[in-house]
Amino acid sequence: MVQPKLYGYAGKILWADLSTKTYKVIETSIELVKNFIGARGFGAKLLWDYMKPGIDPFSSENMIIFSVGPLAAVGAHSTSKFFVSFKSPLTGTYFRSVGGGNFGAEMKLAGYDAIIVVGKAEKPTYLWVQDDVIEFKDASHVWGAITTHTTEILLKETDRDAKLVTIGPAGENVVRFASIQTDDTRSAGRGGGGAVMGSKNLKAIVVKGTGKPELYNEEEFEKLVEEQLDLYHKNPTFHSFRSLGTASVVYLFYTLGHFPTYNFKQLELDNVERFKPEVLATYVVKTGSCYNCAMECWHFFKTSKGPYAGIIWDKPEYETLWSFGGVLGVTNLEAIMYANMLCDIYGLDTISAGVAIAFAYELYEKGILSKSEVDGLDLRWGNLEPAFELIRKIALREGIGNILAEGVARAAEIIGRGAERFAMHGKGLEIPAYDPRSAKAHGLSLATSNIGASHMIGWNTYEISGFPEKVDPFTIEGKGALAKKVQDTTTIYEAIGFCLFPRTMIPLDLASRMLYAATGIEEFKDIQYLFLVGERIYNIERAFNVREGFTRKDDTLPERFLREPVPRIPSKGQVFELDKLLDDYYIARGWDVNTGIPTGRKLEELGLQYVAEELAKLGRLPVG
Amino acid sequence: MVQPKLYGYAGKILWADLSTKTYKVIETSIELVKNFIGARGFGAKLLWDYMKPGIDPFSSENMIIFSVGPLAAVGAHSTSKFFVSFKSPLTGTYFRSVGGGNFGAEMKLAGYDAIIVVGKAEKPTYLWVQDDVIEFKDASHVWGAITTHTTEILLKETDRDAKLVTIGPAGENVVRFASIQTDDTRSAGRGGGGAVMGSKNLKAIVVKGTGKPELYNEEEFEKLVEEQLDLYHKNPTFHSFRSLGTASVVYLFYTLGHFPTYNFKQLELDNVERFKPEVLATYVVKTGSCYNCAMECWHFFKTSKGPYAGIIWDKPEYETLWSFGGVLGVTNLEAIMYANMLCDIYGLDTISAGVAIAFAYELYEKGILSKSEVDGLDLRWGNLEPAFELIRKIALREGIGNILAEGVARAAEIIGRGAERFAMHGKGLEIPAYDPRSAKAHGLSLATSNIGASHMIGWNTYEISGFPEKVDPFTIEGKGALAKKVQDTTTIYEAIGFCLFPRTMIPLDLASRMLYAATGIEEFKDIQYLFLVGERIYNIERAFNVREGFTRKDDTLPERFLREPVPRIPSKGQVFELDKLLDDYYIARGWDVNTGIPTGRKLEELGLQYVAEELAKLGRLPVG
Repeated sequence: MVQPKLYGYAGKILWADLSTKTYKVIETSIELVKNFIGARGFGAKLLWDYMKPGIDPFSSENMIIFSVGPLAAVGAHSTSKFFVSFKSPLTGTYFRSVGGGNFGAEMKLAGYDAIIVVGKAEKPTYLWVQDDVIEFKDASHVWGAITTHTTEILLKETDRDAKLVTIGPAGENVVRFASIQTDDTRSAGRGGGGAVMGSKNLKAIVVKGTGKPELYNEEEFEKLVEEQLDLYHKNPTFHSFRSLGTASVVYLFYTLGHFPTYNFKQLELDNVERFKPEVLATYVVKTGSCYNCAMECWHFFKTSKGPYAGIIWDKPEYETLWSFGGVLGVTNLEAIMYANMLCDIYGLDTISAGVAIAFAYELYEKGILSKSEVDGLDLRWGNLEPAFELIRKIALREGIGNILAEGVARAAEIIGRGAERFAMHGKGLEIPAYDPRSAKAHGLSLATSNIGASHMIGWNTYEISGFPEKVDPFTIEGKGALAKKVQDTTTIYEAIGFCLFPRTMIPLDLASRMLYAATGIEEFKDIQYLFLVGERIYNIERAFNVREGFTRKDDTLPERFLREPVPRIPSKGQVFELDKLLDDYYIARGWDVNTGIPTGRKLEELGLQYVAEELAKLGRLPVG
Repeated sequence: MVQPKLYGYAGKILWADLSTKTYKVIETSIELVKNFIGARGFGAKLLWDYMKPGIDPFSSENMIIFSVGPLAAVGAHSTSKFFVSFKSPLTGTYFRSVGGGNFGAEMKLAGYDAIIVVGKAEKPTYLWVQDDVIEFKDASHVWGAITTHTTEILLKETDRDAKLVTIGPAGENVVRFASIQTDDTRSAGRGGGGAVMGSKNLKAIVVKGTGKPELYNEEEFEKLVEEQLDLYHKNPTFHSFRSLGTASVVYLFYTLGHFPTYNFKQLELDNVERFKPEVLATYVVKTGSCYNCAMECWHFFKTSKGPYAGIIWDKPEYETLWSFGGVLGVTNLEAIMYANMLCDIYGLDTISAGVAIAFAYELYEKGILSKSEVDGLDLRWGNLEPAFELIRKIALREGIGNILAEGVARAAEIIGRGAERFAMHGKGLEIPAYDPRSAKAHGLSLATSNIGASHMIGWNTYEISGFPEKVDPFTIEGKGALAKKVQDTTTIYEAIGFCLFPRTMIPLDLASRMLYAATGIEEFKDIQYLFLVGERIYNIERAFNVREGFTRKDDTLPERFLREPVPRIPSKGQVFELDKLLDDYYIARGWDVNTGIPTGRKLEELGLQYVAEELAKLGRLPVG
């Protein structure tokens, strides 16, 4: 059957097998498009379809999928993110990690809606994709190299205008939270995608494209992009993001009870005013943006003091100002900038790295790890110098770094002696800079998220920033439905390929009109249809985890949140009421309350009968 | 008077005044060309003509001149070096520093045989030269930045295909041995040109050229380039340089009594076999070359261990393998590579930095500097870790680094307590990796060189490598004439713009024919004429120093060489017989033996009457 022409999409998916050094090109099917839109949706569906259950994330049977959406590289702003989907070595779950920069647009221009990499190369390899020409090239000469030097060398030997994703030494050494880097300073950081690449001996994917996807209604689309820009310029968020990106909210969020301090003990942070936007702004020397994004939220900071003087590097974002700042009791901005750069060049997720280091700091404070067990480093709160060493040790798996490289959940098991009390993770993913006790629907998302404790899966603007309307963050009533709503909405935007920072400026109505103008697919005009797709994707991700054995018991958070009340305002006295919140959430989701597993009815309602059937075969579908 | 068309040359000199933000373009005159050829010759002559005597090298009255030769960017190999001429803040003498990479060719293509920068900018500035369009641009955003990040940012905001020279934090902080960097890893390292730029608030010169100099006889020139390549390929030197550059000779030179150890104490070096070519070769992951150079002597090494793992950086050259190796008793190759990179990114001459650090190590060993005086660092021979800190401290002028940043001669004065015995310099320039006791004509050049103890001013292949014929390195007979001959020959090659590494493969006869085919200037066909020019340039450089007050007393070397016999073979028992050698040299030079000043007769013979007259006016010309 010949399918109708696909507008907006590249129309092809590249399937590259490292074991055999062969590849094939698959048509992007209209069914896939209609049911999953693209980007995150494609990743989730392809993983469900092709991934064998129960495999070790480091086995050659794991897959790593890079996918973009129908609005990538077609002239819209903030819509060219690439999504990386794989089974995470950190969580054992389905995972989606998101990267910015220019790689996503370039793979679309090269003709691919997705690049699927399977198998394992015999020796270090990189994939060189020039439109239809695919090469498996030797990467031995850059194996072991930091990401910046790798990038320089690979672009020199391919095409200086090509774009790439690469891993650093951390990915090669299968550090479970190794990142995938692009454009030097951008990361698809979370979940260990870099380690999956490393386990496959895949150092990089370099792409150069010369094509351009055709749009269904170019003229209309251009008007909508103007409308998008107009909305941007009228919105105060746009201007604050342009001036300082996510770093602009650090001080504010601290006052809201987030930006947790001292490994989530949540003590007052001395000198926290160093994170005020007016202080941070003094470090900016240059701005930049991802592919075609008017937000221009890149801000290069210049350091001038100490052992890290003279560096100009993209600023630490909100999360990194925290993961090498608040969570360690540190407010030395230049030191944080240096730690950020070290993570980028070694290829480490800054959130997991910082939380793993905070875990070590607290174990050292509590006497659970002795000085000799932390390789003689003096891990005092507020002092970031030893963290520089720890970053390198983690990336190279040396000494204590070899334990922390496993992530806090596994590290706590290895260390024993009650260490797990201080391992701040959800499903193995280190917790980011939000306190579930200070925003209950947001916390519910951290607890239930299909990729572990991610802040982006259900970033709850209702509770955190009062958008689109203010909801009391401490109450637990109605939070199940609210968490679901935000998760599903987020999923829609991510299936289109939107960056989540500007998305509060783009109503779903506009997103829908853009989708239709780009693709001509009637269904995309209907917002209820989009919600159905969002929920479908969310449920197939959940089903992936169910197939792997995950249930309600895994939707949890560390004891610290469940038992210890927050000691500082405005959340003083709050704990996270896990069980009540979970019940409420599963009901809102139409999932079985006892197991947290989607019911057959829900799956059927979402057009996921084949998923229900497979789960039923495995005996995992709830009865009734 | 309209001068005849100049072939081979760009025909113009750019004169940029930072104080007034104005510039002018001067014609490259036929007289300048005939009398000084280009490159080093232009620098020497222009400095003599335009530099006011007696000024402080850091005053706005100092000049910095970038010049290239007639064979730059016209298709010949290894002839596009750029020469940087200025009054050195390290030595107080005339100075010429030499850089490779692509900058020299680019300034020629932009239309300039030389760029002269004078004055001082009010705030950090860079010069942006696009052919005839000259801009003085704000560099505040990159002031304080390391060289690599500066390069990335400036090329992004000008033209990605432009070439630049830049300084790092060391130059800005007027470290007296700050380098000028180009193409990230290439340096015009010696003499503190970077500090002169820094004192002028000049962060960089960025150049993009679209022109091409016309040749007198293009067809003939192309044949000569083929002849050049043919000679290259037939020569074993070519192949050893291609395989490992100057690093290939480290182990050999150690066995010849060079590659001095432990701040020139010349003790045996344990594990010296780590410097054997076959070991070094295992680190190479990539090669490269300066503009149009078949030598391709760039070799990028990859490190894989310790705190400096994952770096891919151009290899430490012979001198740097020594200045962070032998002279500190270090044989940890990966640590040396890291120190080399630190110097490149902070903008420090690796030779002076290493020797300054060795000076601190020996003072620490002797108890002249206490541990607290070296900021608590444990400066044990063989341990390079503290040197990483010292490199940063020197660049940033922190603590002991602020003293070492003055160079060993001034540092010894500041420290006192007999420190000068261990300050290894000639005229203030830190001594490179040769032992004057192990090669007397070479040593004579170190002692008499117009730029201080440089190994390149009279690199004596007769003594060191037996080329073009073997001369006993220990005898002192005839060494004055030999030193003169090598110095003058070197000057000819450098006035043409040749790189000195491949020049032993290019007979002067071929160089002369290339010069003629390129320029059509009859005189250049005559090798005796070229020798006259070489000697002329050498003498005008000397006269510059005489004008500044330098005499025979300054042509000296540290006591260690004059009094302490070498303890290891093959030079065991040798000292450097300074006085006898100097007498012999001055006589060979036709200079006054008492003062070491060129006689009026010699200057007249060289067509330098105007120089003789000026020196006579100052009462500095020897009588008789």
